[in-house]
Amino acid sequence: MKEISGGVCAPRGFKAGGIWCGIKAASTKRDLALIYSEKNCTAAAMFTTNRVKAASVIVSQEHIARGKLHAIIANSGNANACTGAAGLASARRMAELAADEFAISPRDVAVASTGVIGVPFPIAAVENSIGALANSLRGDEAGHAAALDAIMTTDTRKKEVSVEIELGGGATGGGVPVRIGGMAKGSGMICPNMATMLCFLTTDAAISRELLEASLRRATERSFNRLIVDGDTSTNDAVIILANGAAGAPLIESESAEYAVFADALEACCVKLARAMARDGEGATKLVTVTVSGAGDEKTAEKLAKSIAASNLVKAACFGADANWGRILCAMGYSGAEFDPGQTGVRFKSAAGEIAVCSGGQPLSFSEEDAKRILLEEEIEILVDTGSAAENGSATAWGCDLSYDYVKINGDYRS
Amino acid sequence: MKEISGGVCAPRGFKAGGIWCGIKAASTKRDLALIYSEKNCTAAAMFTTNRVKAASVIVSQEHIARGKLHAIIANSGNANACTGAAGLASARRMAELAADEFAISPRDVAVASTGVIGVPFPIAAVENSIGALANSLRGDEAGHAAALDAIMTTDTRKKEVSVEIELGGGATGGGVPVRIGGMAKGSGMICPNMATMLCFLTTDAAISRELLEASLRRATERSFNRLIVDGDTSTNDAVIILANGAAGAPLIESESAEYAVFADALEACCVKLARAMARDGEGATKLVTVTVSGAGDEKTAEKLAKSIAASNLVKAACFGADANWGRILCAMGYSGAEFDPGQTGVRFKSAAGEIAVCSGGQPLSFSEEDAKRILLEEEIEILVDTGSAAENGSATAWGCDLSYDYVKINGDYRS
Repeated sequence: MKEISGGVCAPRGFKAGGIWCGIKAASTKRDLALIYSEKNCTAAAMFTTNRVKAASVIVSQEHIARGKLHAIIANSGNANACTGAAGLASARRMAELAADEFAISPRDVAVASTGVIGVPFPIAAVENSIGALANSLRGDEAGHAAALDAIMTTDTRKKEVSVEIELGGGATGGGVPVRIGGMAKGSGMICPNMATMLCFLTTDAAISRELLEASLRRATERSFNRLIVDGDTSTNDAVIILANGAAGAPLIESESAEYAVFADALEACCVKLARAMARDGEGATKLVTVTVSGAGDEKTAEKLAKSIAASNLVKAACFGADANWGRILCAMGYSGAEFDPGQTGVRFKSAAGEIAVCSGGQPLSFSEEDAKRILLEEEIEILVDTGSAAENGSATAWGCDLSYDYVKINGDYRS
Repeated sequence: MKEISGGVCAPRGFKAGGIWCGIKAASTKRDLALIYSEKNCTAAAMFTTNRVKAASVIVSQEHIARGKLHAIIANSGNANACTGAAGLASARRMAELAADEFAISPRDVAVASTGVIGVPFPIAAVENSIGALANSLRGDEAGHAAALDAIMTTDTRKKEVSVEIELGGGATGGGVPVRIGGMAKGSGMICPNMATMLCFLTTDAAISRELLEASLRRATERSFNRLIVDGDTSTNDAVIILANGAAGAPLIESESAEYAVFADALEACCVKLARAMARDGEGATKLVTVTVSGAGDEKTAEKLAKSIAASNLVKAACFGADANWGRILCAMGYSGAEFDPGQTGVRFKSAAGEIAVCSGGQPLSFSEEDAKRILLEEEIEILVDTGSAAENGSATAWGCDLSYDYVKINGDYRS
């Protein structure tokens, strides 16, 4: 697998675009995005588990049921959530408008929204600009950059990925180059107005619906679902993948070696985007990677790692570069996961070094200055070993620190 | 029920005291407290559910098993958690030292600690000062004030309560005056180094062990367990009640009218202390009371209310006096509780007025200025009606806002 450029336009046959249509007040900001495949695609998606679902999520869930998508239309500036029947009609209308531009079925269009909840959706803005949106489609840098720009809210960094793998060449290599591209918006800790995380992925692989969904599910579980969103699961979260088969590689329809290569590459793409979201957490000054090993199984390790990364006290200690490891054991203790505190060790690690602070559940004597130096880095790791030798008992979660700016951003987001 | 003065010394036969013994560095701060009853007491207690338990919790759980306590010894400045066998020996030693002073059994002494985790416990400091601690016992204001002072950490306000009820007088009144007193330390949102919440209650009622425990359990569930601690359940939390029967009222040994009066008074005391803790949340500028009504049952209402009060986004919006009600519905949506978003209404209320912002799950048109004026008050209420007419489907939770100071306090607590 190698990294390439191109984002969602890297796989053959995909175009993207983005414009300002008037949902956001400032005309200097894009707010409407489109991703389009020349051919209809096999598609899969994961949506928010929140009981309160945005209209776009409800419509996209209906549309994805057939396992086919041709395009994704997405907006920022309005979440179209808690907007009742009118909101639902607006989401359906967005799909129709995009479909009409390309003479495709509205059911082959996914809809995604992010922004403020509970504000009526200004569908007229989309109606007036749908032609301009279609015209903005490009297969190059300008295309995916504009689309990404149009779904960003308080994001301060662009989150894109594209990779190339070879499929069908067997053990000797020399297969067909296949690409996966992706873009995401969202902040690791919490996005404004509900932690909305959107991720759109494209690939020119040919893969069955079942395996595309299986690989997306596994990749999501090991990436976005291990991003710490502080419990505030959005009403609008969506991860959508389109596979158009344009690379010309053989169809993946069993759990073959090719499937494994594809699934691993997809997971790597999602992990890269998840890490980028954590690093861009609202107000975050640090990326905090928490790895728990030696747990009874992967699920246990995941529960422990997420509980640590989600703790406001741990987050605040990371912000202050304070090696307060007791908070880590405490967060593990209330996670509900089984482990033996008396067998647990904790280390901190960064580019500045590594330091053990706790072993067998008890304090080690360590240099506070060394610990501070390590924790002052922008990317820090919390490494926890719970002392069991289980083969699959490890998992990594990604989060960020809790800073003054987080409070500032979320204290007056609507103002 | 009437409020009286005296705290834990209000019920007859109780004394309290507090001194500096050297666990905290600054000799201007007390760090060791004692509550003592002239007679051995019927006792009950609730402890942290964290899998990582402080040594004091382990020892107190053993001691309370007999249902009897004569005294409580407590310290601040060191949590005595994650301190291994030496920590456990220190906690046992604390009970012994107190017991020796009064020639009582160490098993009749409860131990409680709060402070930094993972630092060896300086038991010599307690050994050297146990005589001075015993000498500090008083039945008056100076006694309970010193004891309370000695268990406080980042608390900025004193949290005490004392009430008097009459028991045994029947419908015509004229019973025996019985008192309940209490003190607590802890901040509603999170206490430093693990949300430690300690609450010591005294009463001169005569009550069976079973009913004392039942009434404490119900009072705790409806007060401290509805305080939002942000998920960071401490390793050290403890609520302990001592009943010495010194008032001379008849023994409560069935779920009689007297029991109901006692249990309601105890619940009112705990609610008062819980509210005081929420108001004193670290960095908090506001007390936020969340009441959910119209839910299927009390447990469902409680889950919804706690999810709202725990949301960092809701907390930050309260700090910013921003009527961002979408965050409230979102927090309800991921709570795991059953409710119909389409039937849900939200109102904000304070001394400055009341305003409805959402009805039937959809936005109401409302004045942002009025909403801001209401939310700028120091005590605000979030009132949610989920539209069902269930008789018992309501519950209240207490929390606070999320401010810059929270981050500051927890970013460098140990420095």
